[in-house]
Amino acid sequence: METVTSIVEMKRAAGSLRREGRTVAFVPTMGALHEGHLSLIREADARADVVVVSVFVNPTQFGPGEDFDTYQRDLKRDSELAEAAGCDIMFAPEVDDMYPVGSVTQVCVSGLTGKLCGAVRPGHFDGVCTVVAKLFGIVRPHLAVFGQKDGQQVAVIERMVADLDMSVEIVRSPTIREPDGLAMSSRNANLSGVERRDAAVLFESLKHVVSRYGAGERNVERVVSEMREMIEARETTEIQYITAVDASTLEDVDELGESVMVALAVFVGTTRLIDNVVLGAE
Amino acid sequence: METVTSIVEMKRAAGSLRREGRTVAFVPTMGALHEGHLSLIREADARADVVVVSVFVNPTQFGPGEDFDTYQRDLKRDSELAEAAGCDIMFAPEVDDMYPVGSVTQVCVSGLTGKLCGAVRPGHFDGVCTVVAKLFGIVRPHLAVFGQKDGQQVAVIERMVADLDMSVEIVRSPTIREPDGLAMSSRNANLSGVERRDAAVLFESLKHVVSRYGAGERNVERVVSEMREMIEARETTEIQYITAVDASTLEDVDELGESVMVALAVFVGTTRLIDNVVLGAE
Repeated sequence: METVTSIVEMKRAAGSLRREGRTVAFVPTMGALHEGHLSLIREADARADVVVVSVFVNPTQFGPGEDFDTYQRDLKRDSELAEAAGCDIMFAPEVDDMYPVGSVTQVCVSGLTGKLCGAVRPGHFDGVCTVVAKLFGIVRPHLAVFGQKDGQQVAVIERMVADLDMSVEIVRSPTIREPDGLAMSSRNANLSGVERRDAAVLFESLKHVVSRYGAGERNVERVVSEMREMIEARETTEIQYITAVDASTLEDVDELGESVMVALAVFVGTTRLIDNVVLGAE
Repeated sequence: METVTSIVEMKRAAGSLRREGRTVAFVPTMGALHEGHLSLIREADARADVVVVSVFVNPTQFGPGEDFDTYQRDLKRDSELAEAAGCDIMFAPEVDDMYPVGSVTQVCVSGLTGKLCGAVRPGHFDGVCTVVAKLFGIVRPHLAVFGQKDGQQVAVIERMVADLDMSVEIVRSPTIREPDGLAMSSRNANLSGVERRDAAVLFESLKHVVSRYGAGERNVERVVSEMREMIEARETTEIQYITAVDASTLEDVDELGESVMVALAVFVGTTRLIDNVVLGAE
């Protein structure tokens, strides 16, 4: 595996791969790789000749008071894990190279970004879209793999790619979970013992919806209220939102149905966790 | 020359050209082609294997009350002119295909777009950047040629391309002028006889600055005030702005110098015209 930190060099490598006719699959990450990321890398490896993984803790998608400074950074560990999963080129640019003095361009996917996480993290998705547009410009992948765990993020990226006519296929890869169902996340490492046990209730509440839906329930308010009750029964949890939306358009839905994404954000202690299920897909 | 109206077909053609290793130069236009556009097409033709010209009157860069509805549209005439100048593929998409229901993404180059024309045409450059990003996504050119006549536009596009790491070389092509110096513009056709005569004062005032600069003048206020006097002496003119900025960053400058762009927007009758000179380049 090759590690590239220079943007110019990565562009050159991408140009060569294109000219050689090799297909490139791309997995953008913020590092702190876990089994979830590795499943994306394996998915990428199965679909293309060359796998590029980026590790870049993107400052513009963190808000004031969020965990940019304390976000785990360990490129050596990430490199080893990525290589073992099938990564061919690790791209790890510097913040000052990605955002040189004078850069002012933003990509905004309005409508889809003002709700769910976007409502409580203003500017977050503008930061995500802009950095992903930049990374697509640098890496020029044929396809890019994103985790369904960040369900709003992948919907927003799909929208951006369609709206800006980018020639990149977006692949949604299923959420990878711990044995008790907790979605893999770099932020799980921040949980204390009791918080870690409480955190399992997030997926329990989502599984509950899937099962209620399977039994014929269609009422959104009712299942959300049942989820609230389950989650609030745990000591260390505080719900930020629970919502049911169309998994692609993120529009609110009146009732449960196929392709409805039930999504939540919950503080467990001081750690903010998100998760979702798409009905009919699980 | 081939004419393509389908986005999917244009993408396919662009993909084939890339695979064949042929270089593509792109000239985006809103049609109503004149000698200025044709010079861009000839420039493109001299620099690449294949020249793609788009004709698309982009609704999102027109404000309320502007001339979107009355903008000249004559694809047959434009096709003939473009072909004679060296165009290989004419791309003329439909508005509904470029902006299908549900499209919400915008590319914003903040800072550079709030001044000059951007100050009096709010949202104009967001529309320009978004459509150019889309067209670059569809046509995937190696280089794109823009006219220096729209001096702010080309600076904004250069910024966008740098910020989003797009692999497109931006070529600035000199302003083409009528014998009396009036910059070629599709909107010149809207001028009455007396307005057409008065319009010559725009470039006369800019030439005046170049000559004053050549003679050692560095004071911005003084030359702008002299320009005002010249322009206001004509009956049908009304100045919207006259300004001196860095030609790349569009930042205001304290004094005249190399790479300073002196730019103006003037209503001649009801027709809004723009023009500029870059000092040291003329």
